[in-house]
Amino acid sequence: MQENRVNLSEREIPRQWYNIQADMPNPLKPPLNPGTGKPLQPDDLAPVFPMNLIEQEVATERFIDIPEEVLEKLLLWRPTPLVRAYAMEEYLGTPAKIYYKDESVSPAGSHKPNTAIAQAYYNKVFGIKRLTTETGAGQWGSALSLGCNLFGLECKVYMVRVSYDQKPYRRIMMNMWGANCVPSPSEDTNFGRKVLQEDPNSPGSLGMAISEAIEDAVNSEAARYSLGSVLNHVMLHQTIIGLETQKQFASINEYPDVVIGCVGGGSNFAGIAFPFLRDKIEGKEVELLAVEPTACPTLTRGPFGYDFGDTAQTTPFLPMFSLGHNFMPPPIHAGGLRYHGAAPLVSQLVEDELVKTRAINQLQTYEAGVTWARVQGMIVAPETTHAVAAAIDEALKAKEEGREKTILFNLSGHGVMDLSGYEAYLNGKLTDYSLPEEDVEKSRELLSKHPQP
Amino acid sequence: MQENRVNLSEREIPRQWYNIQADMPNPLKPPLNPGTGKPLQPDDLAPVFPMNLIEQEVATERFIDIPEEVLEKLLLWRPTPLVRAYAMEEYLGTPAKIYYKDESVSPAGSHKPNTAIAQAYYNKVFGIKRLTTETGAGQWGSALSLGCNLFGLECKVYMVRVSYDQKPYRRIMMNMWGANCVPSPSEDTNFGRKVLQEDPNSPGSLGMAISEAIEDAVNSEAARYSLGSVLNHVMLHQTIIGLETQKQFASINEYPDVVIGCVGGGSNFAGIAFPFLRDKIEGKEVELLAVEPTACPTLTRGPFGYDFGDTAQTTPFLPMFSLGHNFMPPPIHAGGLRYHGAAPLVSQLVEDELVKTRAINQLQTYEAGVTWARVQGMIVAPETTHAVAAAIDEALKAKEEGREKTILFNLSGHGVMDLSGYEAYLNGKLTDYSLPEEDVEKSRELLSKHPQP
Repeated sequence: MQENRVNLSEREIPRQWYNIQADMPNPLKPPLNPGTGKPLQPDDLAPVFPMNLIEQEVATERFIDIPEEVLEKLLLWRPTPLVRAYAMEEYLGTPAKIYYKDESVSPAGSHKPNTAIAQAYYNKVFGIKRLTTETGAGQWGSALSLGCNLFGLECKVYMVRVSYDQKPYRRIMMNMWGANCVPSPSEDTNFGRKVLQEDPNSPGSLGMAISEAIEDAVNSEAARYSLGSVLNHVMLHQTIIGLETQKQFASINEYPDVVIGCVGGGSNFAGIAFPFLRDKIEGKEVELLAVEPTACPTLTRGPFGYDFGDTAQTTPFLPMFSLGHNFMPPPIHAGGLRYHGAAPLVSQLVEDELVKTRAINQLQTYEAGVTWARVQGMIVAPETTHAVAAAIDEALKAKEEGREKTILFNLSGHGVMDLSGYEAYLNGKLTDYSLPEEDVEKSRELLSKHPQP
Repeated sequence: MQENRVNLSEREIPRQWYNIQADMPNPLKPPLNPGTGKPLQPDDLAPVFPMNLIEQEVATERFIDIPEEVLEKLLLWRPTPLVRAYAMEEYLGTPAKIYYKDESVSPAGSHKPNTAIAQAYYNKVFGIKRLTTETGAGQWGSALSLGCNLFGLECKVYMVRVSYDQKPYRRIMMNMWGANCVPSPSEDTNFGRKVLQEDPNSPGSLGMAISEAIEDAVNSEAARYSLGSVLNHVMLHQTIIGLETQKQFASINEYPDVVIGCVGGGSNFAGIAFPFLRDKIEGKEVELLAVEPTACPTLTRGPFGYDFGDTAQTTPFLPMFSLGHNFMPPPIHAGGLRYHGAAPLVSQLVEDELVKTRAINQLQTYEAGVTWARVQGMIVAPETTHAVAAAIDEALKAKEEGREKTILFNLSGHGVMDLSGYEAYLNGKLTDYSLPEEDVEKSRELLSKHPQP
């Protein structure tokens, strides 16, 4: 009988995160103050983030110790299994081996708690009592609620009102972990009150929710803001995914030819890919593939430049691929991939051609998700279907070439709380979206007016 | 660092199920034909179940081989982890060790697929093309959809209409796995049409849905009916849970003092308890504890006698504890525990005082569920909170006694698709239910009119 699962014992869990800033051929460009156009100083961020996380943001040492207190919480579900999808290989009739790293087994159902727990810990030891954040569909809000709960911090989540009303389950999950989740725009901030005064029925937006969460944090000495993707320290915390995977592959004398992850902000991709990217930089042959929706083709079609991280222009200029901070992606169901930019680290590595990119249309991703569920059993998140679709593509290519390729993808989350997209697909109600060239042209124009990296 | 998880390698997965009928001090009483009062013959069941499962129902050999084809599908998620809840032990300040067997990791989120997959397989090799079943909240319907999908059978699920309307996610899950799920009463059966003619807005009931599913199966040569609990072969298929757990404990030189499971029909309890019960019958000191809601106290207060398995009186008389086939339990949120009877095997073992029982009130179970989520991270199913509450009780008793006790419970399912009960609890909207003595008296009267075991 064949073994599907490669388990790592808890004793073997990585004790350090991997910091790719130590190994990048071209170092990251600094974030800029949008007012002065000058590089941001650590102190500029002090009202928003605790200094220990700001230090991690700019750290350049190759490995950073994972605190014992963080490890202890991660061990509630880590190490996660590396699994070989024999059934899918057989279904596709491919000579390729398909492996996935199962990040869906966390209490919140995705990879997000890896950084939520670390961020809650660093804020706690810095003396912070309360974290604020925004959330769209609720994945990040629930992860941060869990992290705060495990370290005894208060957590305030501003949830986009339309999701708050339509997706009550994620909100209840946040309440389970003791968080205070309010619909945004809310009456709790000046910005929220102003929006509500103009439009009492505003459905909210992620940009508005970010503005509320930041305003709340900077106006309170004991509070800070927390972000679930994009930033360097978030990518760092997620590298435990790839570091575990490397140990698991080593235990069976395997190594992947291609490593695949979906990209919204970039954290689950960075988490699985960066440790392998280090090998690549050192000369190892391995391909890293970032997959995004054609509806929001940041890495495949967007320009590389300086842009705001949020719609409301509250963040510094970040050096990244971006469709423009004012870009409004079509309403695809993979909400976590509807981000106009991509993490500066991921962007720089794409710019340097160390990471390959691919955009996949919505129907193909849902088809891949349904096939996965019917062959492997598990229902994956709409975001994760992008990685599944790319893995299937690679396996079919290997079949054509008659090549025994080893494919790895990050199964970043389960989909049992996000079934409505699948329902629409099964009922033939989903459509593909392809971004018109004129929209890409607009983003080029916008970024050309900002400072150039 | 302490290890939380005891993993079993796939090579070590049990190759046989354990059949407790081989070891019971008092053999099971036979099911009776309600018309004649005479023991049922295997052929009587042939229109409802395939003969290979009927043979398993009456088998008395101690071990029954698990077919390779079934093992291969179970390996998609099995063996499941045995986990030590260090964080909860520390939180409670108890000298007890708390272990749980995590059955929530299956694609459907509970232990139910263990038997769904076996039943689909046996029907398939018997030449059956289509299975029918009923489902309330959708746990069993989704598990059988998965099982049928993996073996290429059609699956028709009659889902109680009020749940069909209120809980669309479980229905979509069934569709994901290719099943046809219709609200019951439906236009697809004589019984359903009759009900709808009398009341076009009937909310349906589990009893009605069973009647529709059985009518559909017996009227079609290529179809059979499938049940997710109560029957002997269902208990048999679930014993893989306890058999794996025994191997996992052996690998760390541990053995439980008490084994806990919640009981609705009885299958998750039987699954974890029966292999340990064999040890007990052979003289080992171990306590088996079946936990039920005070709102539906079948084992703790119901009489032991012959009763129908369903409200609509379509089944044979089964020898079991029962609150009466017409008993309507209060609307507690643990829908899977709202069954008027209990599996004949579990009932006989309770009657023989080999299994202890305990009823727990709704508020205590939700309090336990919230505590579990905040300390251990994971959100468990409302049914499972009964086992969690009993495990916490046992751990606190051990603390009082200063005793280093080893506690094991079956974490039968996750709760991320059943959060509304938690929301009601957190908002102070849940109440306790205790069954009035006159209701228990009514069930004694009813069962006294049936044949006596």
